[in-house]
Amino acid sequence: MQSWFNTDRPLLVSGLRGKVVVLAAFQVLCPQSIAAAVPQAQRIYEIFEPKDVVVIGLHATFEHHDAFNAAVLKAFIHEYRLKFPIALDQPNPASPIPHTMDRYKMRGTPSLVLIDRHGFVRKHAFGAVDDLRIGAEIGALTQESAAAAAAARSSAA
Amino acid sequence: MQSWFNTDRPLLVSGLRGKVVVLAAFQVLCPQSIAAAVPQAQRIYEIFEPKDVVVIGLHATFEHHDAFNAAVLKAFIHEYRLKFPIALDQPNPASPIPHTMDRYKMRGTPSLVLIDRHGFVRKHAFGAVDDLRIGAEIGALTQESAAAAAAARSSAA
Amino acid sequence: MQSWFNTDRPLLVSGLRGKVVVLAAFQVLCPQSIAAAVPQAQRIYEIFEPKDVVVIGLHATFEHHDAFNAAVLKAFIHEYRLKFPIALDQPNPASPIPHTMDRYKMRGTPSLVLIDRHGFVRKHAFGAVDDLRIGAEIGALTQESAAAAAAARSSAA
Amino acid sequence: MQSWFNTDRPLLVSGLRGKVVVLAAFQVLCPQSIAAAVPQAQRIYEIFEPKDVVVIGLHATFEHHDAFNAAVLKAFIHEYRLKFPIALDQPNPASPIPHTMDRYKMRGTPSLVLIDRHGFVRKHAFGAVDDLRIGAEIGALTQESAAAAAAARSSAA
Repeated sequence: MQSWFNTDRPLLVSGLRGKVVVLAAFQVLCPQSIAAAVPQAQRIYEIFEPKDVVVIGLHATFEHHDAFNAAVLKAFIHEYRLKFPIALDQPNPASPIPHTMDRYKMRGTPSLVLIDRHGFVRKHAFGAVDDLRIGAEIGALTQESAAAAAAARSSAA
Repeated sequence: MQSWFNTDRPLLVSGLRGKVVVLAAFQVLCPQSIAAAVPQAQRIYEIFEPKDVVVIGLHATFEHHDAFNAAVLKAFIHEYRLKFPIALDQPNPASPIPHTMDRYKMRGTPSLVLIDRHGFVRKHAFGAVDDLRIGAEIGALTQESAAAAAAARSSAA
Repeated sequence: MQSWFNTDRPLLVSGLRGKVVVLAAFQVLCPQSIAAAVPQAQRIYEIFEPKDVVVIGLHATFEHHDAFNAAVLKAFIHEYRLKFPIALDQPNPASPIPHTMDRYKMRGTPSLVLIDRHGFVRKHAFGAVDDLRIGAEIGALTQESAAAAAAARSSAA
Repeated sequence: MQSWFNTDRPLLVSGLRGKVVVLAAFQVLCPQSIAAAVPQAQRIYEIFEPKDVVVIGLHATFEHHDAFNAAVLKAFIHEYRLKFPIALDQPNPASPIPHTMDRYKMRGTPSLVLIDRHGFVRKHAFGAVDDLRIGAEIGALTQESAAAAAAARSSAA
């Protein structure tokens, strides 16, 4: 990731052990991102305690590359009054999928990835996600015991 | 409570220890109940596992008593395709507040009460409740340890 | 029609020549009526001038007859703060379709019928109707010349 | 106006006498434009007959000038599947208000201007506009007689 907004330093998921991480990928010209995913990410940021949950926005472009640059994203963040940390994903010269999107196996925007306190990916979603359900999943992860987390991961494996 | 729907026997909160209980009070002619609280209760019922969360609807009338009866509530449940257990609250001859509403100190409709696995009331809300927030609170209660529950109750006391 | 609310006398469509009439049939336990048709009828009533457009609500019951009475409708009108004239449709002993619904060939709720200044039915709709489209149709009828109205009727015949 | 989309030639309001013209100014990073005004303009385009109503979109930038270019607007039109003619407003070197926005005295985005069949401006709106009301106003203009139009203009003067 090359450019960051709303944070004074880049955030690495590997540096966030002990917290639930919500990774919300969006694109400023993607209708579902704007109508649903971006406002939801902002509300998750407002509702949960920073000691429990970190929200990271990821602006990712699969096409229209010539339309986007850091100035567009900066203006967007200003107009929508977004407060959570947001990164501009780094294009991957070897693929149409940008770097971070590729690492987390995201297929497009909007995408949402939940990472538990131990650094394990617990949910991948592509498309709009229901508020009640995602609230429930994040809320559960914040209270989950280490034993329950291990059991959930082994049953998923 | 006198009449029940969607259950073959009355549900007592005292008989539900070990589960999170969501008590959703509504009235069929109350705009916020119909637009927000009743659909939300149905979705909570759909999203959470029955082994973790029990949703109980409570139809409660503060006024217009002559307009309501079990036939109205039965028709309403049919039209809105509600599947969770719903009781018709019992009028209290000594008060305009029906019996169960009074026991849980509800002030009107819609109201939502969350009860933890140990039988303690953890949230009271009057008016519409945000989906993301209530999802988070219920999700957290489903995973909460006994020690965390005790700590939360003592800090609230 | 037997009971009327928000008017000091029954309204007959035949007595409203010279005005566009919007006849909005609904039922208090019908989800689409409550979510869409009733608020839309109230807004039509607020937006158009009474000299141009008359809105008439019609509460009509196809089933659950034992659940409804004038007290339910009165309480509903109070809770939703409806201001336009509303009638309780008269059951038809010979049919499950109430009297006025039958006269205007309505199939269920919600239904909307538009009648032009000359007393001719110009639109029948069953189900929710788009705000922009119905606004356009009513607006056009308010300005329509007698010649245009005659042409529209003959092309529909 | 320098760049046009969804039309094979620039549209001049002066060349559209005989039709109602809806001029919808928006900006791709303006929340109210995206949530309300742009979808509304598309629906106006779909609902009315081209022989009666012409919809013209106008992308106008008051700030963030470095974020915008024709490539952003082109990608936006593609993603939102917009079909009506849209122009990129021309910056005015002497003012922060772009050229066409200035000519029609628009104060920001979203703005909507209605022009009657005789070329007179009949409505200016800044901010989101109610669907039912704008439908009614456009519908009325499509049927308005020349005499009624003249009367409306003289009463507004």
